[in-house]
Amino acid sequence: MPAEGPRQRGQSCPCPGVQTKLPVLRWLPRYSLAWLQLDLIAGLTVGLTVVPQALAYAEVAGLPLQYGLYSSFMGCFVYCFLGTAKDVTLGPTAIMSLLVSSYAFHEPVYAILLAFLSGCIQLAMGLLHLGFLLDFISCPVIKGFTSAASITISFNQVKNILGLQGIPRQFFLQVYETLRRIGDTRAGDAVLGLACLAALAGLRAMKSHLPQTARTEPLAARVSYLIVWTSATARNALVVLFAGLVAYSFQVMGSQPFMLTGSIPQGLPAFRLPCFSMTAPNGTIPFRSMVEDMGVGLAVVPLMGLLETVAIAKAFASQNDYRIDPNQELLAMGFANILGSFVSSYPITGSFGRTAVNAQSGVCTPAGGLVTGALVLLSLAYLTSLFYYIPKAALAAVIISAVVPMFDAGIFRMLWRVKRLDLVPLCVTFLLCFWEVQYGIVAGVLVSGVLLLYSIARPPIKVLEGDVLLVQPQSSLHFPAIECLRDTVCNRALAASPPRFVILDCSHISSIDYTVVVGLAELLQELRKRGLSLAFCSLQDPVLQVLLSADLEGFQHFPSREEAERCRGAEPGGGGAAPLASTSESSLLPAGLIQ
Amino acid sequence: MPAEGPRQRGQSCPCPGVQTKLPVLRWLPRYSLAWLQLDLIAGLTVGLTVVPQALAYAEVAGLPLQYGLYSSFMGCFVYCFLGTAKDVTLGPTAIMSLLVSSYAFHEPVYAILLAFLSGCIQLAMGLLHLGFLLDFISCPVIKGFTSAASITISFNQVKNILGLQGIPRQFFLQVYETLRRIGDTRAGDAVLGLACLAALAGLRAMKSHLPQTARTEPLAARVSYLIVWTSATARNALVVLFAGLVAYSFQVMGSQPFMLTGSIPQGLPAFRLPCFSMTAPNGTIPFRSMVEDMGVGLAVVPLMGLLETVAIAKAFASQNDYRIDPNQELLAMGFANILGSFVSSYPITGSFGRTAVNAQSGVCTPAGGLVTGALVLLSLAYLTSLFYYIPKAALAAVIISAVVPMFDAGIFRMLWRVKRLDLVPLCVTFLLCFWEVQYGIVAGVLVSGVLLLYSIARPPIKVLEGDVLLVQPQSSLHFPAIECLRDTVCNRALAASPPRFVILDCSHISSIDYTVVVGLAELLQELRKRGLSLAFCSLQDPVLQVLLSADLEGFQHFPSREEAERCRGAEPGGGGAAPLASTSESSLLPAGLIQ
Repeated sequence: MPAEGPRQRGQSCPCPGVQTKLPVLRWLPRYSLAWLQLDLIAGLTVGLTVVPQALAYAEVAGLPLQYGLYSSFMGCFVYCFLGTAKDVTLGPTAIMSLLVSSYAFHEPVYAILLAFLSGCIQLAMGLLHLGFLLDFISCPVIKGFTSAASITISFNQVKNILGLQGIPRQFFLQVYETLRRIGDTRAGDAVLGLACLAALAGLRAMKSHLPQTARTEPLAARVSYLIVWTSATARNALVVLFAGLVAYSFQVMGSQPFMLTGSIPQGLPAFRLPCFSMTAPNGTIPFRSMVEDMGVGLAVVPLMGLLETVAIAKAFASQNDYRIDPNQELLAMGFANILGSFVSSYPITGSFGRTAVNAQSGVCTPAGGLVTGALVLLSLAYLTSLFYYIPKAALAAVIISAVVPMFDAGIFRMLWRVKRLDLVPLCVTFLLCFWEVQYGIVAGVLVSGVLLLYSIARPPIKVLEGDVLLVQPQSSLHFPAIECLRDTVCNRALAASPPRFVILDCSHISSIDYTVVVGLAELLQELRKRGLSLAFCSLQDPVLQVLLSADLEGFQHFPSREEAERCRGAEPGGGGAAPLASTSESSLLPAGLIQ
Repeated sequence: MPAEGPRQRGQSCPCPGVQTKLPVLRWLPRYSLAWLQLDLIAGLTVGLTVVPQALAYAEVAGLPLQYGLYSSFMGCFVYCFLGTAKDVTLGPTAIMSLLVSSYAFHEPVYAILLAFLSGCIQLAMGLLHLGFLLDFISCPVIKGFTSAASITISFNQVKNILGLQGIPRQFFLQVYETLRRIGDTRAGDAVLGLACLAALAGLRAMKSHLPQTARTEPLAARVSYLIVWTSATARNALVVLFAGLVAYSFQVMGSQPFMLTGSIPQGLPAFRLPCFSMTAPNGTIPFRSMVEDMGVGLAVVPLMGLLETVAIAKAFASQNDYRIDPNQELLAMGFANILGSFVSSYPITGSFGRTAVNAQSGVCTPAGGLVTGALVLLSLAYLTSLFYYIPKAALAAVIISAVVPMFDAGIFRMLWRVKRLDLVPLCVTFLLCFWEVQYGIVAGVLVSGVLLLYSIARPPIKVLEGDVLLVQPQSSLHFPAIECLRDTVCNRALAASPPRFVILDCSHISSIDYTVVVGLAELLQELRKRGLSLAFCSLQDPVLQVLLSADLEGFQHFPSREEAERCRGAEPGGGGAAPLASTSESSLLPAGLIQ
């Protein structure tokens, strides 16, 4: 997969379009037994995680429980064929469920229609190649998001470990309630949960300290190595199964110290178009008024879904360093939601927790999704009776051990050392994510955008004082920067008496826009008024073309700084290499008012 | 004034703070009789324009007519002391009146409170030095705004020239209605209006073709020159007075072929705090609920006022090339609105039309505002009876002849020649301004911002193929650009077989952020995985510091391109100048998940 990474991006793709639009073709031919084994384990583990999560999230969304499961398989299937990130798993998530609850009015019909429309919008974005927007999610923002999410998600599971019920979803209320009711902890759940956590931690440690085996070693060693390795990699599945057995045996003995997943309504959803109208007690609600009811939700849901997916995909892509194709991700999301709506799914997106579980279990290709999806379908059809016995504490342990490593305390120290300014978007995102993840990400992106624009509006300008004043902008000039440059030049040039000959070294300027041209024209005029002359030097070709096409009055340019200094005697506004156009002045002034 | 220009900006101001905060101190000491003469003429002309405009705009704002005049003098006084642009005149405007009408519910109390609160908000922005935001209004946006405004404002006056009444304000409706009812044209108004237009055009032409006089010429010549010059400069006032006399004589003769300004209620407004509550038929409305009623208006009104003023100030500043201090403009606006609210003014801002008249009349300092303000006060106190006779057609002619020159058809050709991409913000602004000026400006700013961000996300990258691959970004690297750079390097490096030694020439990179550092770290890893090595060369010092502080694994750098090429044999990831930090990998990966 990594090898393919760099070839997956739009503008620079040497491989046929089919492979780009259908990433499955890229890994399927190279699919091996080793991969299959890992994908099976991962898919199974994620499957065992998604089923109870789906039920929980359906509750959050205010829908009947089975809708959680209906939303959990189509995403996996679609993503397997269209997705470009091996770890990402689409499905119901906490944030999306919250949004759905506020836009679907606890009505499955609304939720399904919302999924359909969101899918269409995301698909449109993908087809319009708006994926480059992804580049504007900077690393500190992703860091802040992942770190905060790991804390919220894992704390969200603490209540299951302690066997507490009726804890609110909002993070701060959750913390308060959990601490307040710490006394009500159920011994059974706590013991099991902590045991599972310990087991998972131990198995992971074991895996990371596993020595490499050489072919030279005796068979026994290699076999035992394989066993340890497998159990360590499949640890999530193992722990869940083990906990399930324990719970079952207690059940058989007639006592039950654990909170169990409980019974799940059985049967597959029908495959049909979503309803575009709804029969309410007081007559049918037409499509138009349903859309009006959802209102802003039709913008928020698809965008948030996108933001979450791409942020997660980006994070995991660079963890396991492969590259994702943003536009392809949009398409996958879109199709997943549209097809999902055909099987009564509510809007889905990339799940942070399950994607982490997936990666932790060492998934190799999106094929893992097939296993997950199949497991969900099976569970809907037959296995609900088995899932009944899964203790919630065990699943909580799986999720916690998956997301805790996402928290990276080092990043704060790192940014302090490398680039302090980047601490601002990091902290903004990190802190706001505890309030609402979507606000955190959006605010982070905005803050880093503002910092970016500011650095463009105030580029570093090197000034060498002397009998000749040499001014050298250290980067390209964009329109917000020209005022600042004009001020620098004017103030420095007029500070000295007699005013000096000014040389503008443009070696670092690769492109300029019209506003900059106008600013330079005004600068030339302003200096000439004061009997000063300004010479340009080391102009890159495109910049020179633009300046010549604008025929600035009194524009002189020289190939190098030295030659410019040599001609410092030249009378102000004197010809130099530039044509003197008497019209240029009036045609260049911003307001163009001179008559 | 121009000489002072460059010294007026915040960050680079060598002159004492008092002069910056009180610009009047900058020009008052140098005030001369010649200036006084011109300021008098300009102030008078603007005064004669503002009075009837104020009445018209008060009607637009849905307030009793006298409130238009109450809003017309305080702005002039305040700006005279605090303003940094000699041409700008603050007062009621069409756009602001429209906004007021939608947020003040035809209630003076609301309008005045709105003015007070808007002033406070603008003052706060000024004190927080948010003036640099002004730099993000690019030249094409100003061009589009001024050109569109000149068309709408002048067409808005056509109805007065034709003597049509009851024409809607919205531009397109206005055009439709005016054309539909062209038959109802009143001969008297049309004749007078066109005559005034012709006279104004003639006088302007005369002025622009006026030859310079030398001391050597005979007195007669110099005197006649002075007469011609004065009448040409004071043409607006002359035309209005002349038209007034004509209308008066007709009145005396008992027939009136013209639409007159009509009678204006007399008397000065009281100077008192605005009311913070309102007595309605059904009990008093408290401050809080008044604020709630105005709601979003409290954001829209101050911001639009600001946007308009700064756009206009910027346009005229660069027409008559002097510089404005954005933050000072905010302060002036804020004080003008706050003090205005003490004399029952509704929110005011820079008036495009009157500012043009002011500039056309050759105003030299903001002192012109004192005359205008005084004239308004006088008119309120005594002169309303005289203004009665001013024909609307004559004032329409003055405004039209002032704003028509603002339309600059050349800009389209100019941008096509110099920088085609800038035609996009220009056209967006220009076209949308016909719908709603505020939408036009906002959309234009957004579009140019998007283009700016895109050019940063996709910087020009020069690639020299050879047995060594040399990659040179042409401008600084900001976080949105790193993905693009990574792809370019990877694709080019892997395209060749055997893969090549890569040199990244950083001579044009003046600063990098953490995201870029991470991207480079991943790039190093990616290339090393494929047995390639990447060397950095010509690093600027700050950039080198950042890269060293991040201790990238396998980071090698060389002072020059040649030295880098010399060492191309170096084994991939080999030490070079960089410390090999085994921790760096995990601490640098965005998701930081590697355990």
